[in-house]
Amino acid sequence: MDVLAVPGERGRGWYLPLMAPNTKGKNFAWLDPSRLYCNHQALSDCVKDLLQPFQNESIDLVAGIDAMGFILGSAVATTLGKGFLAIRKAGHLCVQTESQPYSDYSGREKLMEVRLDVLKPGLRVLIVDQWIETGGTMRAAISLVEKLGATVVGVAAVAIENSEGGRWIKENYRCSHCIPEELQAQIDQQYLESFKSFPSHAQ
Amino acid sequence: MDVLAVPGERGRGWYLPLMAPNTKGKNFAWLDPSRLYCNHQALSDCVKDLLQPFQNESIDLVAGIDAMGFILGSAVATTLGKGFLAIRKAGHLCVQTESQPYSDYSGREKLMEVRLDVLKPGLRVLIVDQWIETGGTMRAAISLVEKLGATVVGVAAVAIENSEGGRWIKENYRCSHCIPEELQAQIDQQYLESFKSFPSHAQ
Repeated sequence: MDVLAVPGERGRGWYLPLMAPNTKGKNFAWLDPSRLYCNHQALSDCVKDLLQPFQNESIDLVAGIDAMGFILGSAVATTLGKGFLAIRKAGHLCVQTESQPYSDYSGREKLMEVRLDVLKPGLRVLIVDQWIETGGTMRAAISLVEKLGATVVGVAAVAIENSEGGRWIKENYRCSHCIPEELQAQIDQQYLESFKSFPSHAQ
Repeated sequence: MDVLAVPGERGRGWYLPLMAPNTKGKNFAWLDPSRLYCNHQALSDCVKDLLQPFQNESIDLVAGIDAMGFILGSAVATTLGKGFLAIRKAGHLCVQTESQPYSDYSGREKLMEVRLDVLKPGLRVLIVDQWIETGGTMRAAISLVEKLGATVVGVAAVAIENSEGGRWIKENYRCSHCIPEELQAQIDQQYLESFKSFPSHAQ
């Protein structure tokens, strides 16, 4: 497979097979989505697909989640011509922050934080991450944005699994993702299987 | 300060004061550059400044360093219309990788890795990080790209400090950064002071 080649025809989700399957065994995630970013057309089409449901929305700022959500979030922000806010794992920022505890995909208790000097009431924010699995990380990011009074316009990720948390996000926020309906079941099945061997994956 | 406001006149490096000073004390970095990304014009002008020295160069791919280099690197890639390759802290990627040990800005021994299935001889890569302090992280990234046979077209970061490693990078690779000459001494002074209270900072 030439990862950087662009096919002549590009159907919906053509770039999804660029995501790389796990070759390292059960201590790792089943898939690495980040290979698709290497292909310029894949990155561009993925961003376009994520933005499609928001084309009539006013967005002031794009927030991306540490670390892989930084890549897609920054590409979305740059494409929109908007600024980018980093929502960070705790302990990195040298400025005052609001923080929010959460359990990530592996079940570990963590803390996420965001600076205090950007978000404010009236600001409309699109939150981007690479992949929504249990939804714990994204729910913490939503809480942080809302605690500071800003409005979550929506949530975007390559995939949103139909986990309990993923469904809650889909029910409560406008969402966009890149998975065609006929592939969603496959994504959800991988999610269930990864939990059989829990704690077995690191994204 | 309204972080999101765009001034009427935008001189060279106008956006640098958007970087946030440390308010948390000596266990943290002296500055948080990431606030400038929140301002769409600052992000766009910063990317433009970083790309200026490379405008006559052919670039196939932009590589960004985990984690803050993902933000600027992805914005650079999207602006250029190129793909983005993540150079990652070890232990995250579920695919085969090449790895490189290094000492980061805090002097800790770490391992950095990159997937095997994208870089190859002939591929021209621009490597982006947020800030080059000791240069250890960037030198490891350069080694990874070159180990896989690809060519490092250049190195870009908001600032490149005149540390031993920073100078080595400037002497051996085409570099771009956003610090006007009259401010470089101030940046370098902060670097020296941060080392007096070492280990005192986390980026």
